[in-house]
Amino acid sequence: MAREGKTITCKAAVAWEPKRPLSIEEIQVEPPKTGEVRIKITDTALCHTDAYTWNGLDSEGVFPCILGHEAAGIVESVGEGVTDVKPGDHVIPCYQAECRECRFCKSGKTNLCGKIRDATGKGVMFVDRRTRFSKNGKPIYHFMGTSTFSEYTVVHEVSVAKVNPVAPLEKICLLGCGIPTGLGAVWNTAKVEPGSTVAIFGLGTVGLAVAEGAKIAGATRILGVDTNPSKAKTAKDFGVTEFINPNDYEKPIQQVIVDLTDGGVDYSFECIGNVKLMRAALESCMKGWGVSVIVGVAPAGAEISTRPFMLVTGRVWKGTAFGGFKSRSQVPQLVEKYLKKDIKVDEFITHNLPFEDINKAFELMHDGQCLRCVMHV
Amino acid sequence: MAREGKTITCKAAVAWEPKRPLSIEEIQVEPPKTGEVRIKITDTALCHTDAYTWNGLDSEGVFPCILGHEAAGIVESVGEGVTDVKPGDHVIPCYQAECRECRFCKSGKTNLCGKIRDATGKGVMFVDRRTRFSKNGKPIYHFMGTSTFSEYTVVHEVSVAKVNPVAPLEKICLLGCGIPTGLGAVWNTAKVEPGSTVAIFGLGTVGLAVAEGAKIAGATRILGVDTNPSKAKTAKDFGVTEFINPNDYEKPIQQVIVDLTDGGVDYSFECIGNVKLMRAALESCMKGWGVSVIVGVAPAGAEISTRPFMLVTGRVWKGTAFGGFKSRSQVPQLVEKYLKKDIKVDEFITHNLPFEDINKAFELMHDGQCLRCVMHV
Ligand SMILES: [Zn+2]
Ligand SMILES: [Zn+2]
Ligand SMILES: [Zn+2]
Ligand SMILES: [Zn+2]
Repeated sequence: MAREGKTITCKAAVAWEPKRPLSIEEIQVEPPKTGEVRIKITDTALCHTDAYTWNGLDSEGVFPCILGHEAAGIVESVGEGVTDVKPGDHVIPCYQAECRECRFCKSGKTNLCGKIRDATGKGVMFVDRRTRFSKNGKPIYHFMGTSTFSEYTVVHEVSVAKVNPVAPLEKICLLGCGIPTGLGAVWNTAKVEPGSTVAIFGLGTVGLAVAEGAKIAGATRILGVDTNPSKAKTAKDFGVTEFINPNDYEKPIQQVIVDLTDGGVDYSFECIGNVKLMRAALESCMKGWGVSVIVGVAPAGAEISTRPFMLVTGRVWKGTAFGGFKSRSQVPQLVEKYLKKDIKVDEFITHNLPFEDINKAFELMHDGQCLRCVMHV
Repeated sequence: MAREGKTITCKAAVAWEPKRPLSIEEIQVEPPKTGEVRIKITDTALCHTDAYTWNGLDSEGVFPCILGHEAAGIVESVGEGVTDVKPGDHVIPCYQAECRECRFCKSGKTNLCGKIRDATGKGVMFVDRRTRFSKNGKPIYHFMGTSTFSEYTVVHEVSVAKVNPVAPLEKICLLGCGIPTGLGAVWNTAKVEPGSTVAIFGLGTVGLAVAEGAKIAGATRILGVDTNPSKAKTAKDFGVTEFINPNDYEKPIQQVIVDLTDGGVDYSFECIGNVKLMRAALESCMKGWGVSVIVGVAPAGAEISTRPFMLVTGRVWKGTAFGGFKSRSQVPQLVEKYLKKDIKVDEFITHNLPFEDINKAFELMHDGQCLRCVMHV
């Protein structure tokens, strides 16, 4: 490839500062260094965490930066020592790395690889603590180790999932964040069993993926909680058996659920990022064995609370990140499941936009009908 | 037996009202009704929950009542339908029932039997919602379904663990609460594995039983946290490998533990009932897999809190009641372990007093050297 080893000038949506609309710019993308991969992003979606950082709510957010973390593409070139992928491979960049060497990866107990976390949290690459993006010499920082709002991006090899090239990139880009988070919260973190009763707080992409995951796991009652009544229909399509609008009740929502389920649900999932609902989700659980999983990301500084009695009487409070999936190992398996039609993906794509209209995608997120908006880069 | 089927007049320590010293009185104990067992209590210890209720802190506490829930004795007579025990059997009355019929008992997921909980919480017996204790016709209520501060007590059959008569009742009375709570928190709730690192907050009877349980489970580092420096020696006898006094540090105790353990412990246990320490215990846990178990009982109304980030990054918050042990089935097994010297019991008995001096036992609880005070009834 002619571009290999050279800086590429290409189009990217740059976030110069919080809350300022993204700006489509010509930027420079350096070649990948040791252990790095340069990817031609073909398709990217927008996820709530992008908007969260764009809004300046992420204390880790470094500006200017290139946002985006739910995408798919094709390897353009690789840096020294990279053996797992080669130019031409179809890949999904993953914000959760998997180095297979650190104590976390080796523990067999978590997907939270610790290898490059410190660098990606600061918007730089691991090997030299610098960025590969710039515009006319001014550095532009990375985001979540992915920065997919760009024609070309550079990521760490440990963050690249190589997938079946048969799969349509414009669909499987969604397997970079929201869908795995929801499915994995059910399968890996909660380990929902056949016959279970489940409650889901928030029926966006993640919540609906939880519903689907619960249905596949054999849950028999799946209660979906959302204040938007127009979600009822979609919710049923994804497996929700009872749609509950908290606004229809005087009682606190946890009491509504406890009453509906003769004591509480076996598993609950908070998919919004609201600490009050995290408490409600825990308190909706059955005494003795109910497990509540925090999936949503709360605003910085917000705290959860409850009476310790809730835990002493047998409820368990946990959380999940990327659904507990090991990214490089398991995202390719999710792609295979999609190809076998074992899991939904297409159904989450409610909108498509040209990449140039990315700021419209941010607006669409506030539309109750939008699940995912995919842009061809 | 001559007394069978008749009301017994005997000695008991009555709590007429909160904070008023217990009064040794002649009281009347009715014969056991259907599904009930009358027990001659031979030995009883005092536990913090007795003092908690005596202090008026338990919103469920009904006065006048007979406190006491860590004891052993001999069955005097049984009511209709009782088949599991007969007069003469050595038993430990258990505040946590095990009916083997309710959805909780049948779940295979919890020891929290639901059968008689509503009655025992109100200080009465299940079958007729009345009390079997009285003095000159004035009712005296039950406590925790055990009321062991009496020569004779009436308990539900589902709350009676029949034990090996070879075992000394004046020792195994301790297997009615504190020791099983600590051992079970480690073995049943946390499921500590060989090679684990453990932190214990509070080194009273329960905390020391946690230390012993962790040692037996193969934990290699057992950090014991207590503000009383004189606990250091005893702590080591029970398995603590590092004694930590928070007063020796400027940093918050969770930071001290995270620093000492290169990221946090695998398991932590709060054995005091202090909500701030419950948070510290959780936050002392390792990212990715740390499990924190709430063992202590917090004051009514107190709430735990933390940043949801703590859970989203893989820590798990749970609690335990009676260490997750199924009382009728497993307390007899603990007695066998004691007889085989697999678990310590004698070592927890630091004081003995005549039953008449029970109020002194309450005072001894504030003595940092007292673990358990056993009284022969
Ligand atoms: Zn996302
Ligand atoms: Zn790793
Ligand atoms: Zn106790
Ligand atoms: Zn039961």
